[in-house]
This record gives sequence, C-alpha cells and structure tokens, in this order.
Amino acid sequence: MASKADVKKVLDRLQIETPSWAYGNSGTRFKVFGQPGVPRDPFEKVEDAAQVHKYTGAAHSVALHIPWDKVEDYAKFAKHAKDLGVVLGTINSNTFQDDDYKLGSVCHPDKKIREKAVRHLLECIEIMDITGSQDLKLWFADGTNYPGQDNISSRQDRLSESLHETYSHLKGNQRMLVEYKFFEPSFYTTDIPDWGTSYAHCLQLGERAMVCVDTGHHAPGTNIEFIVAFLLRAKKLGAFDFNSRFYADDDLIVGAADPFQLFRILHEVNINGGFDVGTPVSFVLDQCHNIEAKIPGQIRSILNVQEAAAKALLVDQGALEAAQAAGDVLEANGVLMDAYNTDVRPLLEEWRSDKGIDPNPMKAFKASGYLKKIADSRVGGNQAGWGA
Amino acid sequence: MASKADVKKVLDRLQIETPSWAYGNSGTRFKVFGQPGVPRDPFEKVEDAAQVHKYTGAAHSVALHIPWDKVEDYAKFAKHAKDLGVVLGTINSNTFQDDDYKLGSVCHPDKKIREKAVRHLLECIEIMDITGSQDLKLWFADGTNYPGQDNISSRQDRLSESLHETYSHLKGNQRMLVEYKFFEPSFYTTDIPDWGTSYAHCLQLGERAMVCVDTGHHAPGTNIEFIVAFLLRAKKLGAFDFNSRFYADDDLIVGAADPFQLFRILHEVNINGGFDVGTPVSFVLDQCHNIEAKIPGQIRSILNVQEAAAKALLVDQGALEAAQAAGDVLEANGVLMDAYNTDVRPLLEEWRSDKGIDPNPMKAFKASGYLKKIADSRVGGNQAGWGA
Amino acid sequence: MASKADVKKVLDRLQIETPSWAYGNSGTRFKVFGQPGVPRDPFEKVEDAAQVHKYTGAAHSVALHIPWDKVEDYAKFAKHAKDLGVVLGTINSNTFQDDDYKLGSVCHPDKKIREKAVRHLLECIEIMDITGSQDLKLWFADGTNYPGQDNISSRQDRLSESLHETYSHLKGNQRMLVEYKFFEPSFYTTDIPDWGTSYAHCLQLGERAMVCVDTGHHAPGTNIEFIVAFLLRAKKLGAFDFNSRFYADDDLIVGAADPFQLFRILHEVNINGGFDVGTPVSFVLDQCHNIEAKIPGQIRSILNVQEAAAKALLVDQGALEAAQAAGDVLEANGVLMDAYNTDVRPLLEEWRSDKGIDPNPMKAFKASGYLKKIADSRVGGNQAGWGA
Amino acid sequence: MASKADVKKVLDRLQIETPSWAYGNSGTRFKVFGQPGVPRDPFEKVEDAAQVHKYTGAAHSVALHIPWDKVEDYAKFAKHAKDLGVVLGTINSNTFQDDDYKLGSVCHPDKKIREKAVRHLLECIEIMDITGSQDLKLWFADGTNYPGQDNISSRQDRLSESLHETYSHLKGNQRMLVEYKFFEPSFYTTDIPDWGTSYAHCLQLGERAMVCVDTGHHAPGTNIEFIVAFLLRAKKLGAFDFNSRFYADDDLIVGAADPFQLFRILHEVNINGGFDVGTPVSFVLDQCHNIEAKIPGQIRSILNVQEAAAKALLVDQGALEAAQAAGDVLEANGVLMDAYNTDVRPLLEEWRSDKGIDPNPMKAFKASGYLKKIADSRVGGNQAGWGA
Repeated sequence: MASKADVKKVLDRLQIETPSWAYGNSGTRFKVFGQPGVPRDPFEKVEDAAQVHKYTGAAHSVALHIPWDKVEDYAKFAKHAKDLGVVLGTINSNTFQDDDYKLGSVCHPDKKIREKAVRHLLECIEIMDITGSQDLKLWFADGTNYPGQDNISSRQDRLSESLHETYSHLKGNQRMLVEYKFFEPSFYTTDIPDWGTSYAHCLQLGERAMVCVDTGHHAPGTNIEFIVAFLLRAKKLGAFDFNSRFYADDDLIVGAADPFQLFRILHEVNINGGFDVGTPVSFVLDQCHNIEAKIPGQIRSILNVQEAAAKALLVDQGALEAAQAAGDVLEANGVLMDAYNTDVRPLLEEWRSDKGIDPNPMKAFKASGYLKKIADSRVGGNQAGWGA
Repeated sequence: MASKADVKKVLDRLQIETPSWAYGNSGTRFKVFGQPGVPRDPFEKVEDAAQVHKYTGAAHSVALHIPWDKVEDYAKFAKHAKDLGVVLGTINSNTFQDDDYKLGSVCHPDKKIREKAVRHLLECIEIMDITGSQDLKLWFADGTNYPGQDNISSRQDRLSESLHETYSHLKGNQRMLVEYKFFEPSFYTTDIPDWGTSYAHCLQLGERAMVCVDTGHHAPGTNIEFIVAFLLRAKKLGAFDFNSRFYADDDLIVGAADPFQLFRILHEVNINGGFDVGTPVSFVLDQCHNIEAKIPGQIRSILNVQEAAAKALLVDQGALEAAQAAGDVLEANGVLMDAYNTDVRPLLEEWRSDKGIDPNPMKAFKASGYLKKIADSRVGGNQAGWGA
Repeated sequence: MASKADVKKVLDRLQIETPSWAYGNSGTRFKVFGQPGVPRDPFEKVEDAAQVHKYTGAAHSVALHIPWDKVEDYAKFAKHAKDLGVVLGTINSNTFQDDDYKLGSVCHPDKKIREKAVRHLLECIEIMDITGSQDLKLWFADGTNYPGQDNISSRQDRLSESLHETYSHLKGNQRMLVEYKFFEPSFYTTDIPDWGTSYAHCLQLGERAMVCVDTGHHAPGTNIEFIVAFLLRAKKLGAFDFNSRFYADDDLIVGAADPFQLFRILHEVNINGGFDVGTPVSFVLDQCHNIEAKIPGQIRSILNVQEAAAKALLVDQGALEAAQAAGDVLEANGVLMDAYNTDVRPLLEEWRSDKGIDPNPMKAFKASGYLKKIADSRVGGNQAGWGA
Repeated sequence: MASKADVKKVLDRLQIETPSWAYGNSGTRFKVFGQPGVPRDPFEKVEDAAQVHKYTGAAHSVALHIPWDKVEDYAKFAKHAKDLGVVLGTINSNTFQDDDYKLGSVCHPDKKIREKAVRHLLECIEIMDITGSQDLKLWFADGTNYPGQDNISSRQDRLSESLHETYSHLKGNQRMLVEYKFFEPSFYTTDIPDWGTSYAHCLQLGERAMVCVDTGHHAPGTNIEFIVAFLLRAKKLGAFDFNSRFYADDDLIVGAADPFQLFRILHEVNINGGFDVGTPVSFVLDQCHNIEAKIPGQIRSILNVQEAAAKALLVDQGALEAAQAAGDVLEANGVLMDAYNTDVRPLLEEWRSDKGIDPNPMKAFKASGYLKKIADSRVGGNQAGWGA
C-alpha cells in the first residue's frame, strides 16, 4: 500500500490536460445552449483553462483543435499561455467539418479529398513544431451510414496510406495518437471502430504511433480497463481522452456516470506503470459541457480524476497479490474495494494545502467571481463553439 | 395466406406519412451537410413531399413540426398541400430549442417554463383545428444529464400535470400521441424513457392518448415487435415513427439496418389488426437524411415499408397457427421465413402499374429531373433545417 | 441531511432477505463448480442463512424456492428456522424445470400445461399459508427462441388468465410479486420482458399484485433508478431482487459491478418513501455464487446494501432540493456525490457495535471456523443446487 | 454480377462443418431439455451429422470436442465417419469443465493448472495427427468475475506463454484458431474478449495462428462484417463459428436472428476472397438446439448459410463499385439490397437437383423417418450432452 507521501508524489506529477473546446459552447444535434462569458477566441479559451490550473494545480496544459483554435501567430499564442501559467498541449486535427468530407476524409474514395485531409494533418504538425506540442491526436469521423455505401477494406487501404504519409513527417519527440470510436457521426461502419483497429495500424506505423483511449468510445458493456491493461503491457497506450457516458458518447464529466469504472481504469494504469516517472501516457479531458457551467465542469473533472487516482494508489498491492495468488476471490476483491471505499478527499485537501492551493477548488473558484467577470466583459463578438 | 388481391387491397389503404423536416437539412452534432435544392420554407417542403406521393402513391400526408413549419396562414398552407395532391398530417411540437428549455420543458422545475411549454402545445392544437390534423405528437427532450440534477418523481408529477392540461383541450377526433425515447439529448434520465412510462401516462389521460413507437428509440436489443403486439392488444398503439438504427437513434432509412426486424414488426401489426380498415395506427417516417439525397431517401423508405408489409401479409397464417399449436418450432419459424424470403418486388410493381404509377419509383423520380430543377430554382434564401 | 442517529434507525429496520439457493451450488451452462460444505437439504440451507443473519443482523429471513426447498413438514421447517433466529420469507415458484415446460408454462399453447403450472403456483400459496410467508414471487422462464414460434399476444392472453386465476387465491396479507426479465433462458421473446409489461398486468390484477425489480434483468444501459422512482410513485414497487451484472444476468454480488448505481437506486428508494416504516418494499438478494465462497458472498452482499443505503440516507436533502430548484446542475450533482464519497464503514461498524455484533462481519465469520465445520460435517448426500 | 453458373461453382465448394455437440443435448443454466433419439456416443453423433450432409450436400465434415468426443480408437472413428460419407474436422479443446479450472486454465495463477491445460491442448494435437484434422480450435472460458480477482496483464503473460508452448507442437498443415468472446462464463473480464486480443496474440505466434470469429461473441451493436473484412485483408481470418443471437451468446440457428447481417458478412467474405479456391477460411456451425429438433436445426442452418452466400454472390460488383466511386450512397446501397431481396431458393433447388439431392432438404429429411428410427432404436444408455 502506498503511503500518503507516495500518493502525494504521484499527484505532484499527475497533470490532466484540458481541451480548449470545453470552454466554448457545445451541445447535441438538437440544440446548442449558449452560456454567458463564453470565450470568443482561442486566447480567451486559454485564459479559462488557466483558471482550472490555478485552482487545481493539475491542469498545466491545454489541448488545441485545428481549425477551431487557428491563430495568426502560434508563437505569440504559446507565449500568451505561458504568461498565464499553462502550456499548449496536444494538437487535435479536424477533417469532418468541411463539405468535402461528407463521405470521409483520409478514407474518402476520391484521392483529392484524401490528399486535402492529409495536408491538414501536416499543417497540424507544422503547428506542433511552433507550439512545441508533442502529440498529434487523430480522430476521424470517417465511416459509412449504409451497407454497400463503400468498400470497407479499400477504406482501410486508404486509411493506412494516409496515416503512413502523415507519420513520415513526425520528428523529434512528436507522436501520433490514433483514436478509435464505436460509432457517430457515422452509423453503419466507422473506419477505426475499436482499439484493435487502432492498435493494428499503430503496430504497422512504428514507435511514434500509439493508441488513444477515449473512455466514451466503446460498445455497451466493454471492459475498458482490460484494454488499458493490454495496451500498457504492449507499450502502445499513448493517451486517454477522459469523459463519461451512460449510453453512447455522452461526453459527460469524467467519473460522473461510473466512478468505480474510472477507479478500475486508473488501478490498471497504476499497476502497469502508467503513473511512473516518464510514463508515455497523457491524461486529457475530452468533454462537452452542454448544460453545466464550463470552467467548474472542468475543475470537477480534474478532481474526479485525482480522487480516483488517489484511491487506485491506495490499493494494498501486497495484500492484493497475495489474495490473487491464493485464489481467494472475495478477499482479492475486498482489498480493491477497501481502497475504493476510502474517502480520499481529506488527503487531496492536504495535498492542495501543501501546494498552496485552496483545499476546495470548486468553492474557491465560485467565490472568485471569475464567472461574473467574464460574463460582464466578454460582450460582443461570437462565442466559440464547435463551428469555430 | 393472403391472396395477391388481398395484399393489394391492404396496399391500397396503407399510407405512410412523410415528415416535412426530412426535406430540409439535418446532420449530427459534428456537422450538417447542406444539399442543393433544399427547401427554404414549408411550402417548398410540401412540394417535395408531393413528389414522394406522386411516385409511390403511398405518402398522402405530410407531418409538420412547429415552429419549423410555422406559416402566416395555415388554411392557405393546407390549400397549397391539397393542390399538390397531399394533406397536412400530424403536428409535432417542439419544446427543446428555446433557451428556456435547457433544463426541461413540461418537466422543468420552474412553473413558468412549464406553462410556456404547455402554451406551445395548445398552440399546436389550434393549428390542428385549422389544418384538420388529427394527431398531436409529443416528443419531449426533457431529462437530466447528471445524477441528482433533478428529482425524478417530481418531474413525473410535472409531466403528468402538463399532459393533463394539454389533453383537456383536445376535441373532435383529435388525439395525443406520446412518444418515448431511451436517451438523447439528455444523457442520464429521460422523462419518458420507455413504452411503459408512455403507456402509464396514456392510461391515466384517457382514450385520446396513445403511444407512439419510434423504432429508433429503444435500448440495445429491445424486442420492438413485442411492444407493438402488447400495445395493439391493449388498444394503445397510436402511431409509428419509422426509421432504422444500428447503434443509437441513428435515424437512417427505415428497413436499411434490419429489414427482418421491420418485417417482424409489420407481421405483428398485421396479425393484431393494425392494417385493418379503420385502424388507429398511423404510419409515419421520422428520419434524417444526413448524407443521402432527401427525396429519393423518402421514396426508398416508402418502398421498404411497403415491401415489408407485403411480406407480412403473405405469411400463411393457417400454417403458422397450426405449427404453433403443434409446438413445432422449426416449422412455425419456417412458415414465417417463407414469407420473408419471398421477393415481393414484382407484386409491388404490379400494384403500381394497376395504380398507373411507374413500377420503379426510384428510377422514375431520377429520370424526372426534379432534383436538378430545384437545385437550379431554389437559389437564395436560407435552406430549411432543424433550426427553422 | 439525516443525522447519524437517523441513519441508524433506518438500518435498524432494514432487513435484506437471503435466498436459500445462494447456499447451494450454482453455475453457468458450461459448468457448476461444487464447493465443500454445501447444504444437502433445505434445513442446512437455513442453517447457513442463519449465519449470515448472525454476523450482519440484517438478514432476518430466507427466501425459498419450490420445489428446490420442498419439505415434508413446512411447520417443522418454519420452526427450524425460528430456532435458528430467522424466518421463512418469500416463496419462489419454479415452472421451468419440468420437461412439460420446454415451450412455456403459464403461457404455453397447451391448456393442460398452463393448468399444471397454475396448480404449482397454488401449491406455493398453500405453502405460504403454512410458513406465514407474505410474498409469492413469480418469475417465468416463458418466452420463445425463434420469430414465429408462437403468437405474442395470445401468450399475453394466457399469461393474464393464469395470473388472474392465481391471484384469486391470495388471502390475508399475501401478495403476488411479478418479476420481469429482458432475456434468458428464452432468446427471442420473453413473455414479461420489462417493467412496463409487469406493471400493466399488476394494474389489472389489483392491489396485491406488485412489481419485483431484479437489478440484473434489464437491457444494457437501462436507468434502473428511474424505474424504481416511477414504481414507488405509482405504489407498485413490491420488492427488489438484488444482484449485479456487467453484461447480462450475471448474478454477481450486489454492488460489486456498479456500486454507484446501487447507491442511486437506494437514493430513489429513500426519497420516495421506500425506507419508511411500513414500506411495501422487500429487499431480497438473488445471486449466484459460482466461484466465490457462498456464505461470505451473502455477507458481503448484505454489507454492500447497508453501505449504499447509509450513503443514500446521508444525502443532504435540503441542499439537494435547493440546488435542484435553482437549476444548479453541478451543485445538485455535487451534493449527491458528497454523500456517495463518504466512507460509511465507520458508521456501520458503530451500528454493529451498538447491536452487539462484531464490527467486521467478514473477518468475524472467517474466524468462526464455520466453513471448515460444514466442510467436515456435511459429507455424503447430494449437494443442493438448482436441480434440487 | 456472378452468373448463375458462377454461383453454383462456389456452392459446389462451400462446405459448412457441423459440430458433434449440436446432435447431443444442450440447454441453459436453468434446464437442459432432452430429446428422443439423441446420440449416446460420438459414433452416433457422426451418424446424425452424415444425415445433414446427405440432405444438403454441404456439410462434409464434423467438428469434434475433446473430451466430449473421446474414443478409444480415433483411426476407427475416422473410418466410421468416412464410411458414412463425412470426415472428422476441427478439434475443439475443453479446459473449462474440470474442477481445477474454476479460476482459469491457460491463464490460471497456478502454473500446475496451466501445465495441465496445455497438456490437454497437446493431446488434442495428437488426436489431430490421427484424425487428419487441420484445425485446433481454442476457446477459453478463462476470465474473472470480480474486479481485483486477478491481474489482467499477468493473465495475458500466462496466456501468451501457454499459446506459444502449444503452437510449437503444430506440424504439417495444422493450424491454431484462436477464438474470442465478449463474456460468459466469466462476467467481469474475459482473457480474450475481442478480435483485437485474438489478433494480437496470433500476430506474435506466427502464420499458423489465425482468428476464429464466432458470430455470437461480440458486444451489442458490434459491426461483425467490419471485423471480417479487416481480418481477411490482414490474412488472419481462419474460421467462422456460425450461430445467431438477439441478446448475448444465444447460440440460435445461424441466420435466424438477423439474416441481413449474415448476408453482409458473407458479402465481405466474397469480395475479400474468402470464397476463393484455396481460401483459408473454414465455415463451421457452433450452435445449441435447446428446444428445436437437432438434425433439422442443422439442416436449416446449412440452408441459411447457402442462401446468404448465394445472395452475396449475386451482388452486381461492377455496379456496386461504380456507385461507390461516384459517392452515390442510395444507389450503392440499392445495388447491395437488390441482391439481398432476391429469392435465391429456386437457384438453390436447381443446384440441389444438379447434384442429385432432393431440392427441399427439410421436407425430404422429415419424410425419411430417420427421427423416428433413432427415437426407437437409441434406447438405454446416456444421451450425449455438454457433460460428456
């Protein structure tokens, strides 16, 4: 069992990246509800992200989405972030919002569309060169809606070719993170529907290509922690996109729908080295705050990940392994549950106090008046959303 | 087994309503892809709907969605439809696109919002009075995204009160169709998540309230034909909203994802009196054509329903009942499958020729040049979509 | 927020019935693994059940399954239980293990089979008359495996008739609890597949008929607490069959797969009066211990229900309602999560000490040597299982 | 579009293996219903399998299950099969019915149990050496029921080691087919839960190791034909285990639950070379006939596969590819559906007549009196089932 000090050491290095788009408007196909104070541009998004880091001490970087976060001068943008105490992180590509992409992007039957998509991916790498971002995260909306619409294996050929072309442009410490998704926005086939497809392509691409596990992108009932354990064992887990879901890709606050699942996932991360110094695993939020306040929603998410991580770290590994070796099912399960049932909030409050952060980030942020401030000051302009 | 003539008689009276919004743009939360020639107003939508009826002879009415189809003069609108050979059908309410409805409409904690929502429903009834529409179809986006967000049973109380208030304004042959949906756009609770909830409220409301079964609104694996049989037996099945799905509420062309399921559903309709003269069951399409051409998408849908219905009518009921009574599992299943495996397209071509319609509606519509005509003529203005 | 004393008061009256069959062998269709010391007859099962009550103080009654628990003299059997400090509880019928029931029991096409099934149900009521059991719990394996195999609505007619016949024999405080199940052992239709079907029949039967919610009997993703809230509001929730599942009807230890779901369910029980004095809701375990030790498995289950109940009772209702009324999504969710994140094990230890029970039932039972005792003494004879 | 003659040529070489256990009794965890005439030993099972081949001309081999089909003299057994016109096919191992395997076999924490399991697999290879069987099919029931019960990645290590040891004993044309399964009989983790896990191990093992796709072993909603296309493209699809399901691993007659899915799967087989001369893909039934007659159930299954294959072969590939290249979604789907909607039963009747087989195998078998013959003659002894 990790001592309290050991747990704190891991918490010291556990940073969870927040996504720029979580600060803008988002919704469902039925309606996007706006909120007062929503950022009008990437600079304001980073200001909000900096608030999350200020109150949690655990959200040091911001993921960008191109073209939603396109700016004239990325160096200036990076400087802006740095001045606010955060850094620019993962670059997310977008090959699903141009009319050309109606039937796909990197898997499109038309070579010209595929080339256009790849050019966008290469542009993302160029941005990474300037921002110093390590990771290019690839999620493709590619797929089909009707049986017969396109040839599944031809699309795999095109996907492979597009990925190889992009991969060949990575340099230095840059990585390519390949995300998979069960369905949506396509409703019959998805070109990377599961971890197996992503893993197979990453194997062929090489060491810089790793799998990204979005916790909301699986078939009902899928045991996500199995996938996590498998990928960590295979040294192919590059990142998490955290969020939670009851039904489909609901994109709710991570840990809100099934906190025990989040704990089990982080338990596998822990025992398979994913919290170690130098871990290749990035922890990133990817959520939509459709009806809840956006900045507090991100803060709550960070706290949920920290709490689940702390519980995972508190599992008495020695007792667990002994019970497992003895085949004592109830005892082994009991050891795990003992950690899960522990109230780690006091430990986290203590850790925050150690760091000079308010022990209750939710209350402290609420009391700060920041939401009122931005509601008052951010008038005029267009609120950021998925469209921009 | 129905004779060919018997099948044709049912086909003669089987009308499938098409929804006005199927002719406008629709998409996912990620992107709405526009299409050339999309209607700019309700009048143009009805023109497109009339084309579907022209080529199929089986789509005599058009469902409207308020406020998407609000017009100055509904009498004139009804006349416009009539002149085109169709009639205005079901009125669909919309209590999910106003900012007030972020946390619900008829179930909202705030009485003022609930009253606003009910006023909208009453306005729909007033429109029905003018258009002569029989059915008010109620689908509510109401629900919650997070455990604790609101009180589930209080929301039921509010729902019940709102429904009763609305119900009391129905007159003549007007009906209230209460739709249920498993999830989306809310992701934790839905206030009418399943047929049981809808049925329970309809029971309390009275005879004019009936359940609407949307074929895409169920939990994975749900046996929809069981629900259909149950509701027909209970005389509470008022309407179908047809579409198909592989995953969630994908809103694909009906019969595209699981044609055997559509056949099984219509088999239950058939043997439980749903195709009889004077049936209370309305057959309506409710689909989104995100990537496929809209008018041909509706035509294909009508054909799919007709083909599945014809197969259902061809089931040899005598042989089926004999095998069931004898407990001969394989024989009973075999009788059903014999009908399903029959190619009914020639029979339907014959029926169309009888009616003076082109035997191949898809080809005939393609050859008509209508799509090019509207692409050329409908320039300027704003294409209709879910927003308007 | 309930005070600690208030919580303890509810715990004082919260009794969770354990099922006799949990002490016998069970397994999957692939294999039943025996365990040393498993009871050979109903008397020994009750002895084991008494151990669970001895160490938890919260498992005062034992559910029986007829014919698995058939005895010569039920009065003597009831006396045996009483001498051990427990009582005989719910009577569960079994109309699925006789060769006659291959194609159904109360829904069978053959009237003779249905009559045989109803006779069995009436026999169960006669047993209740002797044992003083209040509840007849009806779970039917009835259904079909293939489309066309039988007529769905005819089966509903037969079901209704069988239930009415049985219902008419209830007397005094006797109740009929109608269970539903999504699938298994039938794989196409289930004659009572969901709560709606069960509820509809109970409505028609009358006040003594209530719905039993088995937590493992739903479609993937079903929001069970919604059903619980709905049924409590409708005064039709008669009992829970507790267990947990990741996939289908896995019958794992309650709270093992999704402890947060169990908490949410018990929160709805609490705020809708299900823990009140005189509640109509029975709390019963219905699980299979395929690979884990049986008596400790039951003890762990009792503890899980108690812990989840204690957390539910600790929800600050005033704060919750205030946040709900204010539409503060995050605050309302936060109030609920505060209770869930509380470690209630110390409170439960204190409650046990108050009662004169060992604060750690799992350890105390382990230390008691009972498992070794029965392994040594129960030699010869046939171990009890689902077959007997 | 394949000509009728082309389709017949493929049908000439399309053989679907039937499993010996389909002729014995099977059921659910609730009940195994016996049937008259069920074989008492492996020899009688093969006699029944020979009937299926006699009436279909498409079931030339029989899969065996060790130890259920253990015999003294495998050479004699093979001769017995040959004399009846069939051959012994795939050897299926069984490491889930010995008490030692309660917590796993090749993944068990205890090295001795793993060695025992591997010895069994090697014994199976020895049997293959005598029977001339090409394929060793490995399905493992290994997994865990509770979080924490065992270490997921350690189990992968053990699995890998056991597979490598077994693989090293393959010789000649022998292959190892690695099956995956979503869940059951374990309910938390399955050690090979999905195609990705199976594929990853096969990649590491080498060319003789290929994936087996059981059509009933996936998460709800999984697009199986995508997996089929992917594995065929990767040259790692070794075999199908055919059956169908509505919910879980229902093991119903293939094509009974979703005939359109079966067609889509065989369409991918067809366009990706799986029907070619020399295909590495084996087509095998793996079903349970719980309530339907066993031999007719197998015959019906063969017919269903043939019909779906014939439809797949009738897809107009040129038109399909043209529509796909043109991005004409509805046209491409329409081309596929045209083939699916074709009634291929006359073509198959013709093929049978060409072969000298009765055009209607179901009727012909029924008329043969074989079922009565075995019911009369197979008296005494123990009916075969999963236990033996």
